[in-house]
Amino acid sequence: MTASTTTMRASVLHPDLSITLEALPVPELAADEVLVQVGAVGVCGSDVHYWKHGRIGDFVVETDLILGHELGGRIAAVGTDVDESRIGQRVAVEPQRSCRVCEYCKSGRYNLCPSMEFYATPPIDGAFCEYVTIQADFAHPIPDEVSDAAAAMLEPLSVGIAAARKANLQPGQSVFIAGAGPIGIIQAQVARAFGAARIIVSDPAAPRRELALRFGATQVVDPMTTDITTAGYNVDAFIDAAGVAPAVVSGMYTVKPGGSVVLVGMGADEIALPIPLIQNYELNVTGIFRYTDTWPLGIHLVASGAVDLDALVTSSYGLDEAPTALDRAGAPQELKVVVRPGE
Amino acid sequence: MTASTTTMRASVLHPDLSITLEALPVPELAADEVLVQVGAVGVCGSDVHYWKHGRIGDFVVETDLILGHELGGRIAAVGTDVDESRIGQRVAVEPQRSCRVCEYCKSGRYNLCPSMEFYATPPIDGAFCEYVTIQADFAHPIPDEVSDAAAAMLEPLSVGIAAARKANLQPGQSVFIAGAGPIGIIQAQVARAFGAARIIVSDPAAPRRELALRFGATQVVDPMTTDITTAGYNVDAFIDAAGVAPAVVSGMYTVKPGGSVVLVGMGADEIALPIPLIQNYELNVTGIFRYTDTWPLGIHLVASGAVDLDALVTSSYGLDEAPTALDRAGAPQELKVVVRPGE
Amino acid sequence: MTASTTTMRASVLHPDLSITLEALPVPELAADEVLVQVGAVGVCGSDVHYWKHGRIGDFVVETDLILGHELGGRIAAVGTDVDESRIGQRVAVEPQRSCRVCEYCKSGRYNLCPSMEFYATPPIDGAFCEYVTIQADFAHPIPDEVSDAAAAMLEPLSVGIAAARKANLQPGQSVFIAGAGPIGIIQAQVARAFGAARIIVSDPAAPRRELALRFGATQVVDPMTTDITTAGYNVDAFIDAAGVAPAVVSGMYTVKPGGSVVLVGMGADEIALPIPLIQNYELNVTGIFRYTDTWPLGIHLVASGAVDLDALVTSSYGLDEAPTALDRAGAPQELKVVVRPGE
Amino acid sequence: MTASTTTMRASVLHPDLSITLEALPVPELAADEVLVQVGAVGVCGSDVHYWKHGRIGDFVVETDLILGHELGGRIAAVGTDVDESRIGQRVAVEPQRSCRVCEYCKSGRYNLCPSMEFYATPPIDGAFCEYVTIQADFAHPIPDEVSDAAAAMLEPLSVGIAAARKANLQPGQSVFIAGAGPIGIIQAQVARAFGAARIIVSDPAAPRRELALRFGATQVVDPMTTDITTAGYNVDAFIDAAGVAPAVVSGMYTVKPGGSVVLVGMGADEIALPIPLIQNYELNVTGIFRYTDTWPLGIHLVASGAVDLDALVTSSYGLDEAPTALDRAGAPQELKVVVRPGE
Repeated sequence: MTASTTTMRASVLHPDLSITLEALPVPELAADEVLVQVGAVGVCGSDVHYWKHGRIGDFVVETDLILGHELGGRIAAVGTDVDESRIGQRVAVEPQRSCRVCEYCKSGRYNLCPSMEFYATPPIDGAFCEYVTIQADFAHPIPDEVSDAAAAMLEPLSVGIAAARKANLQPGQSVFIAGAGPIGIIQAQVARAFGAARIIVSDPAAPRRELALRFGATQVVDPMTTDITTAGYNVDAFIDAAGVAPAVVSGMYTVKPGGSVVLVGMGADEIALPIPLIQNYELNVTGIFRYTDTWPLGIHLVASGAVDLDALVTSSYGLDEAPTALDRAGAPQELKVVVRPGE
Repeated sequence: MTASTTTMRASVLHPDLSITLEALPVPELAADEVLVQVGAVGVCGSDVHYWKHGRIGDFVVETDLILGHELGGRIAAVGTDVDESRIGQRVAVEPQRSCRVCEYCKSGRYNLCPSMEFYATPPIDGAFCEYVTIQADFAHPIPDEVSDAAAAMLEPLSVGIAAARKANLQPGQSVFIAGAGPIGIIQAQVARAFGAARIIVSDPAAPRRELALRFGATQVVDPMTTDITTAGYNVDAFIDAAGVAPAVVSGMYTVKPGGSVVLVGMGADEIALPIPLIQNYELNVTGIFRYTDTWPLGIHLVASGAVDLDALVTSSYGLDEAPTALDRAGAPQELKVVVRPGE
Repeated sequence: MTASTTTMRASVLHPDLSITLEALPVPELAADEVLVQVGAVGVCGSDVHYWKHGRIGDFVVETDLILGHELGGRIAAVGTDVDESRIGQRVAVEPQRSCRVCEYCKSGRYNLCPSMEFYATPPIDGAFCEYVTIQADFAHPIPDEVSDAAAAMLEPLSVGIAAARKANLQPGQSVFIAGAGPIGIIQAQVARAFGAARIIVSDPAAPRRELALRFGATQVVDPMTTDITTAGYNVDAFIDAAGVAPAVVSGMYTVKPGGSVVLVGMGADEIALPIPLIQNYELNVTGIFRYTDTWPLGIHLVASGAVDLDALVTSSYGLDEAPTALDRAGAPQELKVVVRPGE
Repeated sequence: MTASTTTMRASVLHPDLSITLEALPVPELAADEVLVQVGAVGVCGSDVHYWKHGRIGDFVVETDLILGHELGGRIAAVGTDVDESRIGQRVAVEPQRSCRVCEYCKSGRYNLCPSMEFYATPPIDGAFCEYVTIQADFAHPIPDEVSDAAAAMLEPLSVGIAAARKANLQPGQSVFIAGAGPIGIIQAQVARAFGAARIIVSDPAAPRRELALRFGATQVVDPMTTDITTAGYNVDAFIDAAGVAPAVVSGMYTVKPGGSVVLVGMGADEIALPIPLIQNYELNVTGIFRYTDTWPLGIHLVASGAVDLDALVTSSYGLDEAPTALDRAGAPQELKVVVRPGE
């Protein structure tokens, strides 16, 4: 960033759910922050949801909001407490700012910080723009092997890593993954990278099942034609990446006694769960809320080739095409849509 | 047991749900077993349920069955591989027989053994009789400080210990317990023994809330008049000992982020659970299926006075009065009904 | 603190190891800090060591240093980001300042932060003075039940809590503690509060063994007359609070297979450990470096009466008597010597 | 085994440390056992040690002993409680027999069973012979992808798996392995299979360092020319596969705060360890004593190609050449020497 750069282009979502491209001031740097020139931003389902519905749960778009929380780029400037040598460094951004003082932050569960400020969650702006700020330790350096788009997708990869850790997935174990959308496909890759021996992925769409096989699944199943509950999979863990009640409930029946159920897919409100199954099998049912300490592993997995994120990008748009990007992101043919603010 | 003792009295539940007192052969000893002369047997809700309904889930009373799985007594004889010095020893019986060979047994989770034979679960006989056999390592020696009735109640105490362990309850933590029946009261005592600083117990019945305060609760609440979900308890763990949907669901809202939910109460089939709560708070929801390695701790807690089981006995019957005992066990005025085969 | 209070009395250790009482500026408050008027400071062995030797390991007294890191007091003023209602609050101080940004801080192990600034560790000043500053979240509120002296001793209690957690001490388990000095006595109390069933304490001094029995030990032993290694204690954990090689080595032989060894006592440099024992018994040998998240539990244990710290205070001095306090702290008749800057 | 096969050839170690080939009765089958026709047996350092010294620690060759505890083969007959369909099945043998009743067996740590009977540990015979018996659940079925020699080496692979688990090695982490003998080479492969990102192996011998690079090491180092203690490796775990004091001590200095030290290498008796390092870094120092539940994962790793065991076989002998095999096994040019009783 040259001294003269004081404004930037940003794609802004308004409370009336219209989106316009605007010129906004480049955000100011705090002492412990870096300014990142955004190279690529992934479009997440939550972005689409804010755009279509103006809210997710208690979070409401009441003032102008910049969407986008999956991003990579290059450090353009640093705050006064940050080493100047980082200027120019390519980074993937962990898009959260925790308080660092509460019991959750101090016990290593900063994702549960009640004061968390998260990108693109009202009223915190995200990254559909040219420049963002982030605390220096949340701007993770990436090697050349990791593209800007892959850097952006380290965020959904982090979700997959967090889920695999929650499932306590160990080498040689087995996992059932419901849903072969972007999260399910990434989850299958993560399961493979964690050494899972048997990775079963369910999806009603044949092309997605094909994708799953390409990206780590050892077996796929169509839940419309196979009764998942009686298929006898007997897996160590079930990770739901579908977010709908039938997938969640049937998936629980694939787990062996003492196994794990991790609910990643969002969308469901209440789901009627089989309590005697949870009890008799002592299933551990939990969910994930974002992640802690996932970027370093994610960067390693991508740089080493264990996980392929670039292959998941199905289309790419400029900042001025953000509405199109959001629209496409919901299409079944797309896996991951990326916005490139610099183009 | 003198050599002449070859028959015993037993209270037998028939498939038509009638109960008769019969003379049956004393069970034969295997090499690794002990023969226990039953001193006291507690009546559990599951006994009452088999008596009233003839089944629990897939377990159906299709042939004659002796009920009762909470018991203490004295070793009357030992199998050929067991040290003869154990004859005469007072013991509490862990009423299960695992295969010791499967992956669950070999990994320390023998309660999940798919070949488990459990007392008073069709077609395995229980202890409403004068003599039972059990493998020697599941007949846990008890000191004089533990009465026969307390020895019997080590079984429900084991449930409480297993639940506290599942909740990973640590000194200084807080717990919300739904239900102040026998299990809830024992759970409160266990929580106190585990060092919990705040033990909140809910029950709609005022006398039960009074009991809870006497046995470890630091605070009680009437769920009919207080909205549990918004009371702001913010506990480390919620243990359900009620088994009904409103208790389970509201209890989940008492837990802080990262906390535990342990479902102990039985009876519910499906319950509609709040998925976003599980996800956003990363709650760990699980249940317990019996227990492993709980008797030694239970015996210590009772012998040291940390847990009082004798005070929970509200009435006591002879073997010939088993139907009355079963009938009373369901009455709200009773906490724990005990059958004493020797009287 | 009135506006006019700008200087304070402080007991200062000089590089020549002399100690003088001086008038120093009251330390300045950062935005996230509180100013604590010191009520009581405990004298720790490390204070005595700095005074006598001018160094501990790589930490050397090269400039003036205020000793003392065990303290309680009252909040006299707050930084601009701290709630003013805290002024007047009684607190126990967790005497450390971690960076909150490194991988250790963010993973809940802030005690291992390589940038840690710790009280009374050169060149960071401690609390043998009237006023100290600390970040607000490390000034833990205490109730009336906790005296100033007990508040100070929450620091060594924290050591005991950290050790018990490291040993994964569970209700009903057994522990062997070597050494019945202040740390050993506190450790016995912590073990009792954690529900240990068997607490064996060794010390060559009969009066200290008596103390141990008074404060939680269920059994004591004189290591000069009993061969610890063959005594057959078979405990779940060994916690060394002696810091000398014979205690450490013999203590390891008291542990059952799979058990824990936690080295708390300081002073030893290298100790020849029995490697085949560690291997064949799969012992977990570790140490503790201070603590994380121990004050809340410590305050609960003291306030509830589970741990008695006041009874450990054997003498008390004013700030001008700091050299005497340091001298006495090394005497075998003393357990805990306290300095009260306000007197 | 045909009915007529009642004797077998066995290589017998006598108390005078001579070895002779003898005709012995085929061992009798217990009800829960299988009879395995041995296909391949690996020669372990412990076999060589018994042959040369007649003892390891308290285990002394006082009567005739068959050596060998690394083996694979084919089921020739089954006991009365075992499914007959297993006859003909190729298996890898987990060469231990635990009591299944003690607290260790019941808590999932059967390797610590005090009544363990282990192959080739006096007075329990091993597998330098044509037929052995083992309880059916410890005869692990292997697919065609696993050769007899690899089946035999599942035993040292199990050691590596147990060590990696003890080190809690996670994807993306780093490990320092001292020693590139058979165990070190296998350990490097296991670390790679567990997803370690950085695998540093030290060995004074250049050919062994080359091997390490071929089998998973990302970096090798000569401890004779590099000061390991100051090299700044900063790894998550150190696994010693050398068993000599300088390797153990220097390796501990490669570990980052909070990291693990797993002592696998045998031979050392006492080693002077740096206590302040253990304390200040809160290192977890432990060892492994054999393994539990490692064969299934090991078989998967070999069958999937993640671990290559066949490449480690450097020579192969018949049963009559057992003394030569033992002699060669100690030669520096050899990695793994195998005996094939059927040839």
